[in-house]
Amino acid sequence: MAPKKVIYDTDPGVDDAMALLFLEYSPDVDLVGITTVLGNHTIETTTRNALFLKDYFAIAAPVAQGAGRPLVLEPTVPPTYVHGENGLGDIPLPDVIQSRVHDLPAHEFIIKTVRDNPGEITIVAVGRMTNLALALRQDPGIVPLVREIVIMGGAFGFKGHSGNVTPVAEANIIGDPHAADEIFAAAWPIVVVGLDVTQEAVMTTAYLEALRDASGRAGQFIWDISRFYETFYRTTTGLEGIPVHDSSAVAYLLDPTLFTTRGGPIRVVTEGIAIGQTIQQPNTRKFRPNAWSNRPDHAICIDGDAERFLKLYFDTIVAGAAARA
Amino acid sequence: MAPKKVIYDTDPGVDDAMALLFLEYSPDVDLVGITTVLGNHTIETTTRNALFLKDYFAIAAPVAQGAGRPLVLEPTVPPTYVHGENGLGDIPLPDVIQSRVHDLPAHEFIIKTVRDNPGEITIVAVGRMTNLALALRQDPGIVPLVREIVIMGGAFGFKGHSGNVTPVAEANIIGDPHAADEIFAAAWPIVVVGLDVTQEAVMTTAYLEALRDASGRAGQFIWDISRFYETFYRTTTGLEGIPVHDSSAVAYLLDPTLFTTRGGPIRVVTEGIAIGQTIQQPNTRKFRPNAWSNRPDHAICIDGDAERFLKLYFDTIVAGAAARA
Repeated sequence: MAPKKVIYDTDPGVDDAMALLFLEYSPDVDLVGITTVLGNHTIETTTRNALFLKDYFAIAAPVAQGAGRPLVLEPTVPPTYVHGENGLGDIPLPDVIQSRVHDLPAHEFIIKTVRDNPGEITIVAVGRMTNLALALRQDPGIVPLVREIVIMGGAFGFKGHSGNVTPVAEANIIGDPHAADEIFAAAWPIVVVGLDVTQEAVMTTAYLEALRDASGRAGQFIWDISRFYETFYRTTTGLEGIPVHDSSAVAYLLDPTLFTTRGGPIRVVTEGIAIGQTIQQPNTRKFRPNAWSNRPDHAICIDGDAERFLKLYFDTIVAGAAARA
Repeated sequence: MAPKKVIYDTDPGVDDAMALLFLEYSPDVDLVGITTVLGNHTIETTTRNALFLKDYFAIAAPVAQGAGRPLVLEPTVPPTYVHGENGLGDIPLPDVIQSRVHDLPAHEFIIKTVRDNPGEITIVAVGRMTNLALALRQDPGIVPLVREIVIMGGAFGFKGHSGNVTPVAEANIIGDPHAADEIFAAAWPIVVVGLDVTQEAVMTTAYLEALRDASGRAGQFIWDISRFYETFYRTTTGLEGIPVHDSSAVAYLLDPTLFTTRGGPIRVVTEGIAIGQTIQQPNTRKFRPNAWSNRPDHAICIDGDAERFLKLYFDTIVAGAAARA
C-alpha cells in the first residue's frame, strides 16, 4: 500500500517533535507538509522549532506558518513550565536556521494541498484547531476531499483521565475551543485521540534510555528534549516517565487497530468553568433533542494497547535512524 | 450502634419510593423526616406521593413540602415518560390521602431538625438540591452541625457513564445546577453517589420478580411501580432491568464499604451546553489556580460493589416486610 500523504499540524513542543520523528521515520507516511500553530509556545517559536527540526533531521516537507492567535480568545502565556523557555526542553538551539517558511500561510497551504490531492490527504493535528478552522471557513469545499483528520486533543473521562488544564479541559482544545467546535461540526472523518488514551501510554525513563542507546542521533535528541518535560510530569502528576500525547495520534494513523473507538457527535464547551471540554454524545444511548442533535458523528478513542504502541514507536525510530545512519 | 437519624429529601418518583422503603425498613436508620422537592414530578405530585407512601407503609416520619421551582432556572415539564403520569409508574392511587404535610416548609424543617440534633442528622438527598440550598442560604450556621449529606446526583464519567439528560448532565443536578453548586461550596461532609455507580447497579426483571415473591406487600408494590420505569430504560438504553439510582445513596449510608470514593472540590456548570455537569478536581493531580481553587473537598463514588449492594437491598426489604407482616 502506498504511504499515506500527511499534513502535520503542530506546535513544537517536546512531544510534537517526538511525533514528527515518528511520522518522518515511518515508511507508511509521506509527509507532505508541516503547518505550525501557537500553543506550546508562540507562533514565532513553534515555527522556529519546526524549521530547526526540518534542518536537524533533513526533513523534505515544507513548513507553513499558521495562526498566532485563537479565533476568539485572547492568546495565553506559553506554558514554558511544560516545554521549556524555547519550547524544546531548553536544549541548545543553533543561532541560524537554514530552512525558510512556505509562501502560503498554514490554512491556505492546507486548502491547496487538499485540493491538489483530493481524497488523499490525512491531517494529523496535534495543536490547537485554529489552522483547520481557518481552512474550513475559507473553503468549506475541502470537507469531502480530506481523507481523514486525526486529532490529539480533548478528554472524555475514560479510565479516570480528565483534563490537564482544568479538571475537564485538555490544552489543545481549551487553547481554541471555538475552532475545535467548528471542526467537529463539519462532516469530514475525524478521529480524536484524547487524554483518555494518551495518558495511558507512558514512556518510562528506562524506555527513553533504551531508545537513546538504540537509535543514535534521533534517540539522543529525544532523550535530550524530554528531560525538562519528564520533570514537569514527575512533579505535577507523580508519573515516572512521560505520557505520549502527540505520538498517539500518529500511532492511530499507522495502526488503527491499536485503539478502540466510540462514535457520536462531539461538541466543545466555549464558555463557563467547563470551557474547553470535549463532549461526545454516544450513539449507544438515546437523548432528547439537544445541542448535539444534527451534528455529524465522529470517533473518539476510548481505549488503547499502550504496549503495542510503545513498541511501534520504538521500532520505527530505531529502523528510521538505522536507515539514515 | 444507634440508628442514624436521617432526613430523606426526595421527589417520588419510582426509585425514590424504592429507596424510601430501603430507609424505612433498615434497622440502622431512624427516619426523622421526609422533605419533598420538584423533579420527577411537580411539587404537588411528589408531595402527594410522599404522603401516599407514608399512609401506605405506615411511616412515622413527617412529610415537609419543599421547593416547587429551582433557584434560578424556570421549572421544566415533569419527565412523565420516565416515572409515569402520576410519578409512581401509573399504579392506581387512592383518591383520599390521610396524612398531612408538616407545618414547616422543607428547608425550615431541615434547619430546625439539624439544630435540634446537632451533629446527628444525615441528609440523604435524591432530588434536586433546592431545599438544601434554601436551608443553607437561610441558616449557614447549620453547616458544621450536619453529620453528613449523601447525594444521589451527578455524573463524573467513570466506567463510561456520563449524563442521562445530556451527555454530561444528570437529572437531579441539571434540574437546579445553581443550588447544587452552592451546596458543594459549603464545607459540610458530602458524598456524591452519581450515575457512575448507580448505573452499574441493575435490578434485573428476575431480581424484581424474586423480591416480589419474597417480600409480600412491599415486594408487590416495588414490582408494580417499576413496570413503567423498566420499559423506559429498556427502550432508551437497551437495559434489561432498572438502574438503582436513589437506593444507591441509601446503600452508601448503610455501608460505605460498598463504594470506592475520590476526594476533591466539586463544581457544577451553570450555563452553556454542559449545564448541569458535575466536575470534581481530583486531589491526585495539581492544577494551576482555577474555578475549583479554595473550594472544600467532597467525596464522589467512583466504583461500587453492585452485587453486595443488591443483596443488601433484597435482604433489608425481605426482613423489613417480615417484621411488619
